[in-house]
Amino acid sequence: MAHIVEVSDADDPRVDDFRDLSRADRRPDRPGGRGLVIAEGVVVVERLLASPYPVRALFGVRRRIDELADALVDLDAPAYVTDADVMAQVVGFHLNRGVLAVADRAPAVDPADLIGRSRNLAVLEGVGDHENLGALFRNAAALGVDGVLLGAGCSDPLYRRSVRVSMGHVLRVPFTSLETWPDGVKLLQDNGFRVAALTPRSDSIPLRAAGLEHGRVAVLLGSEGPGLTDEAIAAADLAVRIPMSGDVDSLNVATAGAIAFHAMNGG
Amino acid sequence: MAHIVEVSDADDPRVDDFRDLSRADRRPDRPGGRGLVIAEGVVVVERLLASPYPVRALFGVRRRIDELADALVDLDAPAYVTDADVMAQVVGFHLNRGVLAVADRAPAVDPADLIGRSRNLAVLEGVGDHENLGALFRNAAALGVDGVLLGAGCSDPLYRRSVRVSMGHVLRVPFTSLETWPDGVKLLQDNGFRVAALTPRSDSIPLRAAGLEHGRVAVLLGSEGPGLTDEAIAAADLAVRIPMSGDVDSLNVATAGAIAFHAMNGG
Repeated sequence: MAHIVEVSDADDPRVDDFRDLSRADRRPDRPGGRGLVIAEGVVVVERLLASPYPVRALFGVRRRIDELADALVDLDAPAYVTDADVMAQVVGFHLNRGVLAVADRAPAVDPADLIGRSRNLAVLEGVGDHENLGALFRNAAALGVDGVLLGAGCSDPLYRRSVRVSMGHVLRVPFTSLETWPDGVKLLQDNGFRVAALTPRSDSIPLRAAGLEHGRVAVLLGSEGPGLTDEAIAAADLAVRIPMSGDVDSLNVATAGAIAFHAMNGG
Repeated sequence: MAHIVEVSDADDPRVDDFRDLSRADRRPDRPGGRGLVIAEGVVVVERLLASPYPVRALFGVRRRIDELADALVDLDAPAYVTDADVMAQVVGFHLNRGVLAVADRAPAVDPADLIGRSRNLAVLEGVGDHENLGALFRNAAALGVDGVLLGAGCSDPLYRRSVRVSMGHVLRVPFTSLETWPDGVKLLQDNGFRVAALTPRSDSIPLRAAGLEHGRVAVLLGSEGPGLTDEAIAAADLAVRIPMSGDVDSLNVATAGAIAFHAMNGG
C-alpha cells in the first residue's frame, strides 16, 4: 500500500517533483528537465499505476487519493496528501483534477521487439504538436493499433500535455523511435508489414480500396501542415488518401489517423 | 472595395465591435451579447467574407489586411487598420493572427429546406463543448456532409471558439436547430433519410455493416460523456457502432463523427 503522508507546508522538499509544473524551465518533463512522467487526474493516474513506468510518488487532495485506494494497494511509494491551496502553491496553478503522480521513465522499447509482436502499427513523421500526438495515442488505443513508431521530427509523447490529451493512453500503447528515417521503415517491411502512407496526393488510392484490413499493416502519418515528406512516401509500399471535399483543408492528423486506424481495424 | 480607415487610438468607438473579446460579459457572441459573428485570422476571415453573414467591419494590422485585398474587393464596409499594440488594447489580448472581422447573424435556415437539398447530414444531441462543435464542422466540411442539424443541448456553433476551431467551416456548412427533440428526427425520415444513431451499445451494428454509403443518410451523434439519450436512439432507424478495443474510453465525438462521415461518404 502507498504510504500516506500529510503535507501542510508548500515548501516541503518531499513534493519537489511536483513543483512549478507550468514554468517551462522547471518542468521535469521538458528537455533539460529530469525526464519524469507526470499524470494528472484519477483516470490518468490509474493508467500510470498500471503502466511499466515506476511511480515515484502521488500528490493530491484527500478525496482524490481515496478514490485511488484500490489502485494503490500494490504501490510501494508515498502518496502526499494536502489541501487544494497548498497543492496550487506547489504546482504553480490550481489543478482541477486534484491529483498528480510522477514516475521515472522506463527503458526504451526495442523497435524490432515492438514490430515483431504487432499486427497494426502507426508510424509518425514530424508530429511535433503535443495535443495531436496525445490524440493520436488515444485514437490508436481505441481502434486496435498495437504500437506507435516515431520517425523524424516527432515530439516526446511523454510530455505532460500529450499524456493528458491522450487520457493516459500514451502510457499504455507501446512506442519507440526509429533510429534512421525513413530507412527505418524497411524494418517493418522486412517483418512482413505493408506500409501505407496517408497523403492527399492525387496518385494515392482511396483508403477503402487499399485493403488495409488484411495482414500486417503500418499506417504512415505526417504532420498537419506539410504532410509526409516525399522520402517517407517513397519508402512506403503504397500511398492512400481519404477522399475529401473540394477546397477544404486537410483533416487534423489525429482525425485522419483515426479514420485510417478504423480501416486497418476492419472498419 | 472595403474602406481602409486608419485607427491609432484604442478608445476609438468605431472599433467597439472588437473590444474586450475575452471578457465573457462583453463578448458579443455570448448570451446577452449582441450575437455578432467573429472571425480570426486571414483564412477564417476569408471564409466569413464568402459566407451568408453580412460583414460589418474588419480590424487588423496592415500586413494582414493587405493579404486579404482580393477578398475585400466586393466588400462595402470599413477595414480598420492599426498596429499590434493598439489592437491588443482594444481586443484585450495579443492576437497572433493579426486580423478580425465581425458580421451580423443571418436568418435561421429552415430545417425542411436544408433537409430537402441534402444527401448526407449530421444531427447532434447535447454537444455543448465549443471545441468539439467546431471540430465536427471542420470534419463535416472535409468529408462531404451537406449540413448539420442541432438537437437538444447543443451550443451555439457561431461562438468565437467554435468558429476558430472549425477553421471557419462553421460559416460554410449550413446548420439549423430542430424545434422538437427527438421528434424532429421524423422530418428526416419523412424526406427519405435513413437515420443512424452512433452508439457503443452492444446491440448496435458495426459501422462497416450499416451501408451508410447508400442513399440519403443522417448520422446522429451524442455528447462525449453520456452519449445519445435512449429517446434519440429510439427515434433513429438503426444503431451503429465503431468497433473499439476493450477498456478504452469512447472516442472524442468529433473523431467518431469523422469516422462515420467517411463511411457515409463512401469510405
